[in-house]
Amino acid sequence: MADVSVAPPWRISQWFNARQPLDLDALRGQVVVLHAFQMLCPGCVSHGVPQAERIHRLFDGDGVVVVGLHTVFEHHAAMTPVSLAAFLHEYRVTHPVGVDLHEGDDPIPVTMRSYGLEGTPSLVLIDRAGRLRLRHFGRLDDLTVGREVMRLASEEVRGASLCTEASCRLDD
Amino acid sequence: MADVSVAPPWRISQWFNARQPLDLDALRGQVVVLHAFQMLCPGCVSHGVPQAERIHRLFDGDGVVVVGLHTVFEHHAAMTPVSLAAFLHEYRVTHPVGVDLHEGDDPIPVTMRSYGLEGTPSLVLIDRAGRLRLRHFGRLDDLTVGREVMRLASEEVRGASLCTEASCRLDD
Amino acid sequence: MADVSVAPPWRISQWFNARQPLDLDALRGQVVVLHAFQMLCPGCVSHGVPQAERIHRLFDGDGVVVVGLHTVFEHHAAMTPVSLAAFLHEYRVTHPVGVDLHEGDDPIPVTMRSYGLEGTPSLVLIDRAGRLRLRHFGRLDDLTVGREVMRLASEEVRGASLCTEASCRLDD
Amino acid sequence: MADVSVAPPWRISQWFNARQPLDLDALRGQVVVLHAFQMLCPGCVSHGVPQAERIHRLFDGDGVVVVGLHTVFEHHAAMTPVSLAAFLHEYRVTHPVGVDLHEGDDPIPVTMRSYGLEGTPSLVLIDRAGRLRLRHFGRLDDLTVGREVMRLASEEVRGASLCTEASCRLDD
Repeated sequence: MADVSVAPPWRISQWFNARQPLDLDALRGQVVVLHAFQMLCPGCVSHGVPQAERIHRLFDGDGVVVVGLHTVFEHHAAMTPVSLAAFLHEYRVTHPVGVDLHEGDDPIPVTMRSYGLEGTPSLVLIDRAGRLRLRHFGRLDDLTVGREVMRLASEEVRGASLCTEASCRLDD
Repeated sequence: MADVSVAPPWRISQWFNARQPLDLDALRGQVVVLHAFQMLCPGCVSHGVPQAERIHRLFDGDGVVVVGLHTVFEHHAAMTPVSLAAFLHEYRVTHPVGVDLHEGDDPIPVTMRSYGLEGTPSLVLIDRAGRLRLRHFGRLDDLTVGREVMRLASEEVRGASLCTEASCRLDD
Repeated sequence: MADVSVAPPWRISQWFNARQPLDLDALRGQVVVLHAFQMLCPGCVSHGVPQAERIHRLFDGDGVVVVGLHTVFEHHAAMTPVSLAAFLHEYRVTHPVGVDLHEGDDPIPVTMRSYGLEGTPSLVLIDRAGRLRLRHFGRLDDLTVGREVMRLASEEVRGASLCTEASCRLDD
Repeated sequence: MADVSVAPPWRISQWFNARQPLDLDALRGQVVVLHAFQMLCPGCVSHGVPQAERIHRLFDGDGVVVVGLHTVFEHHAAMTPVSLAAFLHEYRVTHPVGVDLHEGDDPIPVTMRSYGLEGTPSLVLIDRAGRLRLRHFGRLDDLTVGREVMRLASEEVRGASLCTEASCRLDD
């Protein structure tokens, strides 16, 4: 939670559950919950994906946007967009999901690299000012997630600055 | 969550896990999570009590105080303070727990009545200004609880008024 | 499962969910599942007691009898028969439960001693010939329990001997 | 459990976790647990597949063989053998799994049809004499599964007949 750098832009090859491509800049002013997963990662399937869907449904109306990021870094032939589409359908995922872009021969996709993610599942919280505030690899319990998302949702953006209870910080 | 009346004082016959009696007035300025339970209520044992303990451990440092309230309204001879002491020991409960006072022949204890609780488990949230903000009978999931406790913990009290993001309200 | 001694008789001070006292000798010819528990033992409440009730409901008709044994060896004042009655009612326990007898100053009850139980929860399996065949302290998963109970239920008693698939053993 | 027809042979296009193709005839004399699943069926992933693996590990030594059957009847392009291989690897499945054969344009694979399976997950129990004894669509709890597998494992095959406790039946 000490990480307060600006969240890097997303590089997405295909979107699901979205009428148009989602852009991080356009989401400024809202809290963004980014959930990085792979459809054949057991911890993602049993915990991360359903948790992301719960956040999506619960925080609707609090200025919170949940975005799934399919960061395939292994078994590439097994987790194609065709397979992902069936997965999202069968698991009743309704929040938007973007397929992280692969470039050249790199097995690790671009956005996963730029966010420095260690693996899947990973949860990333981005505040209303577009700053990366939390980046967690592995399981995070619901009570903690509810607390951290609401912490950011309770902050106000005033002018070019981000205000917490204690202070306002310039958003340069 | 529309309930914004002042939270009634507690009437407690005996405290556990507390060096001295806890008083709601003395907790003004902090968010209070009040968890009403009975030690032989299955939903309390499997869900409510461990959730209250998780809140106690997680929100320590956010100005949040968790208090258990043993509201015995049935099987009175089976849930005496002697049995409760063993229960709290065996279930490793570390947050303070008060035994709700019985008066006269009323099977329902005093604080349970004054809060209008329907049964156990019940979760009550009291804001920094001492106002009753949430009163829920039954199971409430962790994500929702994390969100609601943090919502109140993010509010500031300014002078005699309680400020939310949108406005400040006189605390008369 | 190497223990093939004759199961000791039970010493019970009070029965619940039983029209008349249960006697191990009278149950000869049936498989007996004995579940030792304490009503304030967390592992018993979350796992052992509901498992015993599931066995009771599932194996009804297979010649299997499930008996609970309340073996209080700590917090004696907190787990009296009055408290146990409320517990059995609230947790919807329908199988017969006997309160293990205390003698003299011994904090450990008589049947618990004679069976050499290490603590609660413990599961004891007694075959159709009255022999102690399994004695397990702690959690035992449902698949294993289903297997072991059915293993004994599949055995026949022929005359004074107990026959397994492989052989028949004299029941002296 | 009233179904006592002879279990049809399997038609498999590819095996995983098997040194050589498995053949139902060659397994005569053993109890066979056949688990039909699809790798993108949520109930299979959360319940059926791990349960099949548990049976495989627990009943090893009781003359019980567990076989997975990948019966893809929807999202065919999403659940190819390449994807299945990654799935079995990630979910640590060690029991043998056969891919049910597709013939012509039929979206439903051959073995699934010949066994009359309604969907996935399905559990099929075949006794030592090669007879179909249980066929269950949906979730079956561990206690029941442990009981039913052991029920069959306790039966003996004598000559050309199958003996239960009560009687021996000709295996014509």
